[in-house]
Amino acid sequence: MKELRPPAVRELLSHLERLPGVGPRSAQRLVEHLLTCPPDEPARLGEALISLRARVRLCSTCFLLTEEDPCPVCSDPGRDPSIILVVESPTTAWSVEATGEYSGLYHALLGHLSPLHGVGPEDLKIDELLRRVQGGGVREVILATNPTVEGETTALYIARRLEPLGLDISRPASGIPVGGEVGAVDQVTLAQALQLRRRV
Amino acid sequence: MKELRPPAVRELLSHLERLPGVGPRSAQRLVEHLLTCPPDEPARLGEALISLRARVRLCSTCFLLTEEDPCPVCSDPGRDPSIILVVESPTTAWSVEATGEYSGLYHALLGHLSPLHGVGPEDLKIDELLRRVQGGGVREVILATNPTVEGETTALYIARRLEPLGLDISRPASGIPVGGEVGAVDQVTLAQALQLRRRV
Repeated sequence: MKELRPPAVRELLSHLERLPGVGPRSAQRLVEHLLTCPPDEPARLGEALISLRARVRLCSTCFLLTEEDPCPVCSDPGRDPSIILVVESPTTAWSVEATGEYSGLYHALLGHLSPLHGVGPEDLKIDELLRRVQGGGVREVILATNPTVEGETTALYIARRLEPLGLDISRPASGIPVGGEVGAVDQVTLAQALQLRRRV
Repeated sequence: MKELRPPAVRELLSHLERLPGVGPRSAQRLVEHLLTCPPDEPARLGEALISLRARVRLCSTCFLLTEEDPCPVCSDPGRDPSIILVVESPTTAWSVEATGEYSGLYHALLGHLSPLHGVGPEDLKIDELLRRVQGGGVREVILATNPTVEGETTALYIARRLEPLGLDISRPASGIPVGGEVGAVDQVTLAQALQLRRRV
């Protein structure tokens, strides 16, 4: 039995298999595609990968992903600086922004509290958030951490630290996804949706 | 509403979404990983992608993927040159070789006959196979094209062209996958498995 996969293919496979959601089978399908597609495609993907970490950094104010610091949101005079929406991950802000419903500023924590994994408040951008708020001009903070145990704990912790400053502090509602089925939703979400019911 | 994804991220997403099996959602998950993993990981993946097409070519004899021509199989004096196993794709040979049951040579057709998609015999490495066989020393050809309509058609076509040369021509058996369930197998495969039944 011989190793028929050329060294360049084996190297690429080992890198691909390290990616989330890519197993040996899908890595092989990717390599087959990359060997048969127009030859400049893998090279262009390769260049985009190499330049990624050199070009993209975190905004030193809000910790969103950006190529300039401060980021386009923080430096936009048209945004409302009196509201800060807090997310766990910078990419969550992409989804919030895509709703077209939000025109304030953002703040990414870069994670959530997780004592089991050794993640404490000092590992997140919580002090940075407090400093922004203490800087003045902020009247509302929306804690859009995920509605998971860790996300709720993180929101609660931040809410307690913000409390003395007398701001409006809120969390987005949990409920039945629009277009979803009432019967298909988990019990906890359904209970929340009932508690938050609105008069029609 | 602002475009919050930095240009470098958008470029990478557009390249990733062109890959088979990668949708917008999984492309975003890949980018999140690539932005938070050790910084040399994306660069090394990028370099592997850039060098892939420069390093890997097809063996001019058997059309397997290789970095040297002829490939390590064709140039190995320990392989049995009297048997050629024919596959549609070079990567199929990797699976055959991994069984440890085969010590002959290979021949990749680089596709299958598909009149609907305009793929005729001249688009595959069929003439090259005939020339290898006519070169002498070959006594058996195993047609391991896929057991699909196109693969069967391709095997039949090649078998007819090889017929005048008086070789042993075979196809691997179709049947119930080892470890599989008799009741879970499709009707055509089950019928084949019954026809090819063996006395115990």
